[in-house]
Amino acid sequence: MGALTSGGRPPSANRPGQPRTTLLRGAELILTMDPDAGEGPLGAVRHADVLMRHGKIAAVGRRLPVPPEARVLDVSGRIVLPGFVDIHNHLWQSSIRGGCSDQDLYGWLASCNSTTLAKIDPRDMYRFVRLAALDALQAGVTTVVDWVHPIPYETTERYIGALDDSGLRFVYAMMQTPANAGLVPRVKKELLGPLPLASAQVSVHAGMAGVDRLRRFSEIARDLGVMLNSHVLEHHSDRGDDPIRALRMAGSFGPDLLMNHAIHLTDDEIALAAGHDVRVAHCPLSNMRLASGIIRLPALHARGVKAGLGHDGGTNDTSDMFNVMKAALGLQRALHQDPRVHPTIPAVLRMATLGGAECIGMADRIGSLTPGRCADVVVLDPGTLNFAPRIDWTSQIVLNGQPPNVSHVFVDGRLRKADGQLLDVDTDFVIREAELAAVHLRDTL
Amino acid sequence: MGALTSGGRPPSANRPGQPRTTLLRGAELILTMDPDAGEGPLGAVRHADVLMRHGKIAAVGRRLPVPPEARVLDVSGRIVLPGFVDIHNHLWQSSIRGGCSDQDLYGWLASCNSTTLAKIDPRDMYRFVRLAALDALQAGVTTVVDWVHPIPYETTERYIGALDDSGLRFVYAMMQTPANAGLVPRVKKELLGPLPLASAQVSVHAGMAGVDRLRRFSEIARDLGVMLNSHVLEHHSDRGDDPIRALRMAGSFGPDLLMNHAIHLTDDEIALAAGHDVRVAHCPLSNMRLASGIIRLPALHARGVKAGLGHDGGTNDTSDMFNVMKAALGLQRALHQDPRVHPTIPAVLRMATLGGAECIGMADRIGSLTPGRCADVVVLDPGTLNFAPRIDWTSQIVLNGQPPNVSHVFVDGRLRKADGQLLDVDTDFVIREAELAAVHLRDTL
Repeated sequence: MGALTSGGRPPSANRPGQPRTTLLRGAELILTMDPDAGEGPLGAVRHADVLMRHGKIAAVGRRLPVPPEARVLDVSGRIVLPGFVDIHNHLWQSSIRGGCSDQDLYGWLASCNSTTLAKIDPRDMYRFVRLAALDALQAGVTTVVDWVHPIPYETTERYIGALDDSGLRFVYAMMQTPANAGLVPRVKKELLGPLPLASAQVSVHAGMAGVDRLRRFSEIARDLGVMLNSHVLEHHSDRGDDPIRALRMAGSFGPDLLMNHAIHLTDDEIALAAGHDVRVAHCPLSNMRLASGIIRLPALHARGVKAGLGHDGGTNDTSDMFNVMKAALGLQRALHQDPRVHPTIPAVLRMATLGGAECIGMADRIGSLTPGRCADVVVLDPGTLNFAPRIDWTSQIVLNGQPPNVSHVFVDGRLRKADGQLLDVDTDFVIREAELAAVHLRDTL
Repeated sequence: MGALTSGGRPPSANRPGQPRTTLLRGAELILTMDPDAGEGPLGAVRHADVLMRHGKIAAVGRRLPVPPEARVLDVSGRIVLPGFVDIHNHLWQSSIRGGCSDQDLYGWLASCNSTTLAKIDPRDMYRFVRLAALDALQAGVTTVVDWVHPIPYETTERYIGALDDSGLRFVYAMMQTPANAGLVPRVKKELLGPLPLASAQVSVHAGMAGVDRLRRFSEIARDLGVMLNSHVLEHHSDRGDDPIRALRMAGSFGPDLLMNHAIHLTDDEIALAAGHDVRVAHCPLSNMRLASGIIRLPALHARGVKAGLGHDGGTNDTSDMFNVMKAALGLQRALHQDPRVHPTIPAVLRMATLGGAECIGMADRIGSLTPGRCADVVVLDPGTLNFAPRIDWTSQIVLNGQPPNVSHVFVDGRLRKADGQLLDVDTDFVIREAELAAVHLRDTL
């Protein structure tokens, strides 16, 4: 990245330096998300420790012995859970936060999104993505799926550099034009392959007008052994494209497909999605902001469709997974006037962690504090004016939690946020850089 | 308050000590909420100062002269707006945050609310209210309407003491049983009268089973010159009570009536509310959490009914007016699939400030930065990972804002929060005290 990232790049990101063994000592409550590892659907363990070693969860239990090489962190009075898994975002869209706020999806795409992306040069792309990635990280997101529109190789290099420098685990879901289809395997091999926290997906647009293209990119995804990732029926007018039919005709409709939004599915399409084990990314705050509609989450759940949560990009504006959970829960409750409608509190916490990991085929690695899984861990401080006193902490995570309650964040066993502050990064510098990039954009548009 | 409040009471709350003249120097953007004071519907003024003197807004303008006695605060790069006006809350319900989270209104009332209130002793009431009031204040709320269920005089004394000690402007909306109706004027005179930031409302329950009681308390409110405040059609089953008919029969249906929630109004009732200038408090996060339904805000607006926003109490759980605004906007957008449906971004910002003040008959004193109005002022820091870069700040307040963006809060010209920290209060102590009170409650229940 060279001079472009100086000052904004953490010296230790993804590099040696931190101790590789950490013991979280004496948590008040651990939600492992693994029913076999604790009580109830979220695998709750009380008054216990979490040991991380070489980037993995080594043990969860009471009074674990302290390895001599361990850094010990006192988390008494705290809540520990897996980091949030955000399965749909467009981090570059921090460049259009709050923009075109009186538009629906297609108005916003035309006025803010498409006009902006083409104007962002590689250096500014780094700046916008860096800001958004750190915002997600500070809010407790440890894995993000970043759906990226077609951009040139050099911009891609900067984009991925910003993600890498931020220390997040990330899935780079890349779209390309047929003419540049060769970029997909190249980016995977050259840019993502060397990065231990990176993986790839192939992004597409699903519609009857482009079945051949869809088939081609599905084959590329299959050859690369990665998932296909498409926006599906986000706007009611998308019905005209018949995306589900297109995905089926292209042979893409199966467990390796992640459908974003999927708001306007029919009963038959929900049954089909269930039958083919297709996955869904639900982005409630974006759907509200863009007036897209209310997803049929209870119907999807009743049929057994796997669904996780996403922030989405400039259409959601904030990185606050607590708020995403609250909105996912509250939208269905308000619509159905039923407080036990799906998702319940445990269900929405699972969606934000292990459920999201399942949707992207990573549940064997992330989303729960099961020994052997990646040490992606969040520590919450409930001793704050917005969260205390303790009544029902599991519910309070969803209903009271705010990003400042995230006191510590580990990704792959490395400490990224401690005592409420991101480590190894000058956030003021990152913010100033993003402001500079926004000024460039204003001057260009 | 004596020993009970020691350590939790700010030495200077509502008392002399702070300079009475403050100049906010060089704000990047001031939303006065007064169309006559600036551009557009929110009265925007750029690159200007705000002068506060003796608890009032003295001037808004560019390069104001610095009075010799003034404290000068550099707010360059910041946004200044009136403090949020929360027109419906129950601050004591911090005692049941996250509680009974799988229940609707009546399940929650039976399992969490009614069983709890009777068990809270005066000392613990102080602790719960103190916590919630400070949480609201730190999130930029400068005026709160606190709807309080029937409690004994001694508990009322502590309740009001906690509000007063916190430095918020507050409207104490008190309910009493007919047997204790005399407490209402007594509390107003003895406990609220001496407090410059306090005022009163009379709270009732509206239903055909209690028209006589409703009439009696309406008369008490009229005698005291204060507004009547009732929950109306929050749950669909409230239709059975026919509350609008009851309010009309009791002679209560007019501009001195604030209806909370008002979700399940018919077209005819909306027209009636408009015709009688009845006011509405909308609490979207509570309505989502309790599965109460989605208010018909566009229809209310089309008819000209005045509506403001509220957090509500233990059913909302957080104090985050940014989130309340986002939810009020997003619920209607998602339901109607129309990004221009009411409330728009400017409309929801107005609802959270001047619109709320109008609903409670205080628009001549609070809700806008008009010279002569109370100096209830919030400074936002947009230079944060969740808010930057600058694209459309007015939209970003609603879509990106989080409580930590509230850097400074003034109530009645007195600085209550500076550089992100509440002043003159040991918040750790307040939190520990609330935890103690919650332990008492668990032991009692």
